[in-house]
Amino acid sequence: MTRIAICAPSRSITAEDAARVTALAADYPGLELEFHPQCFLEHGHFAGTDQQRLEALIECANDPGFDAVWFARGGYGSNRIAEDAIARFDSAAEGKVFLGYSDGGYLLAGLYAHKIGRPVHCSMPADVRRDGGEAAVRRVLAFVAGDNAGLEPGLDHRPTVAFNLITLAMLCGTPLMPELAGHVVLVEEVSEHDYAVDRLFFHVTAHLGGIAGLRLGQVSDVPVNEVEFGQSAEEIARYWCARHAISYLGRADIGHDADNTIVPFGLARSFAG
Amino acid sequence: MTRIAICAPSRSITAEDAARVTALAADYPGLELEFHPQCFLEHGHFAGTDQQRLEALIECANDPGFDAVWFARGGYGSNRIAEDAIARFDSAAEGKVFLGYSDGGYLLAGLYAHKIGRPVHCSMPADVRRDGGEAAVRRVLAFVAGDNAGLEPGLDHRPTVAFNLITLAMLCGTPLMPELAGHVVLVEEVSEHDYAVDRLFFHVTAHLGGIAGLRLGQVSDVPVNEVEFGQSAEEIARYWCARHAISYLGRADIGHDADNTIVPFGLARSFAG
Repeated sequence: MTRIAICAPSRSITAEDAARVTALAADYPGLELEFHPQCFLEHGHFAGTDQQRLEALIECANDPGFDAVWFARGGYGSNRIAEDAIARFDSAAEGKVFLGYSDGGYLLAGLYAHKIGRPVHCSMPADVRRDGGEAAVRRVLAFVAGDNAGLEPGLDHRPTVAFNLITLAMLCGTPLMPELAGHVVLVEEVSEHDYAVDRLFFHVTAHLGGIAGLRLGQVSDVPVNEVEFGQSAEEIARYWCARHAISYLGRADIGHDADNTIVPFGLARSFAG
Repeated sequence: MTRIAICAPSRSITAEDAARVTALAADYPGLELEFHPQCFLEHGHFAGTDQQRLEALIECANDPGFDAVWFARGGYGSNRIAEDAIARFDSAAEGKVFLGYSDGGYLLAGLYAHKIGRPVHCSMPADVRRDGGEAAVRRVLAFVAGDNAGLEPGLDHRPTVAFNLITLAMLCGTPLMPELAGHVVLVEEVSEHDYAVDRLFFHVTAHLGGIAGLRLGQVSDVPVNEVEFGQSAEEIARYWCARHAISYLGRADIGHDADNTIVPFGLARSFAG
């Protein structure tokens, strides 16, 4: 039996979200999900206070009865607790897989930086709400159950990471930022203006010297601005990569949608590592 | 006669904007404004191509006939040309005052980092469009004419800088970022969600170790989110300053509004330095 603990380091989910995901998991007899009650707390923007989110995350990570910790939802907030949480993770956390993306990237980054557990960029329980979201959730459940069909197709022999672009931008220069020299870096973005994507690329490419290359995921739900920016997201990525002598390696299929592919950090290519 | 060259390193202004500002300047007989024709170019989002904006900026900065260069408008774009421009500034640029804010902060930062000229955070010609915008423009014209009434009241004996928060966040770790140890850092923001302000403070406070303290300017036009964040902008600033042992020094009156005060970078307290 593979046991997955679910907690919400950023925003909350509902009992209905949890029920839908639990129902899907019934098709994977080797898996058992446990939603921590903290998933359903609300405190302003967040799934409970910083302290409540921190303690639930530590509880899940340090419980030797679980094989994986799955972040319930993104939406902002894990950066407020990531450093404190990681500092308190113990040997039980070291063997675990940590699953999530978007705002969960602060934790994936910090774990990777501190070589704790195996971070994996993938969809989250809250994605069940999306059009086609059940497929996104099934992709992760299947991955945990040993089926690698949902992996990002472009993964190669080089260590890889995947991030939401603004999450990566905010990570740069903080204690949560891993050393990415030699890595293929995948980025995706949602709900940001074209000019903001350009601005974020200005910032992150200045911090990504020495990476093996960059791949661009989906850039979706771009708000309409009063003026056309004049360059596509891919042109923006190519421009800033060229300015910093970073190899632009083409597209990837990570993103804030139901097709979001799975990217185990580093050289791992399966749930088992 | 004090001569001010105006160019647009980010977005364009209209001939009408220029006419209104020129009319206001007639009340200051010691001042002469010259709007570079590049101010009125449009290329997608920007006031002309990167090359056109770059060349106009260099022309203004390196022309010994001008005492100051005033950025016409913010809105995004100066970061794309700042490094190249600064690399080509010559001795004529070194004696000049550079006036602007918001997106113009990339240039103010780079100039300050390279100890070229005297950067000053202040309103721009495009601010004439605001409610009460004529007062904002007059405040800058008066400052250039020797009247210091428009200075930020909180300036003290410590070197000071002022930035738009997201501009400062994007500057961190880039070659344009000045060394700010010992400085009082003023930040303001506009049109960002509370959670995004929190996220930006997470990032910038991680980069501001050793500053003398932080003051918070206006945080205006905050979009309404689906959920109340639960902390005010000032609570957010206090929280992140406390986490990084940065002194929170209270409010300042910089911001994206007609009251935007003037902050000469460093220890300068007048147009003359």
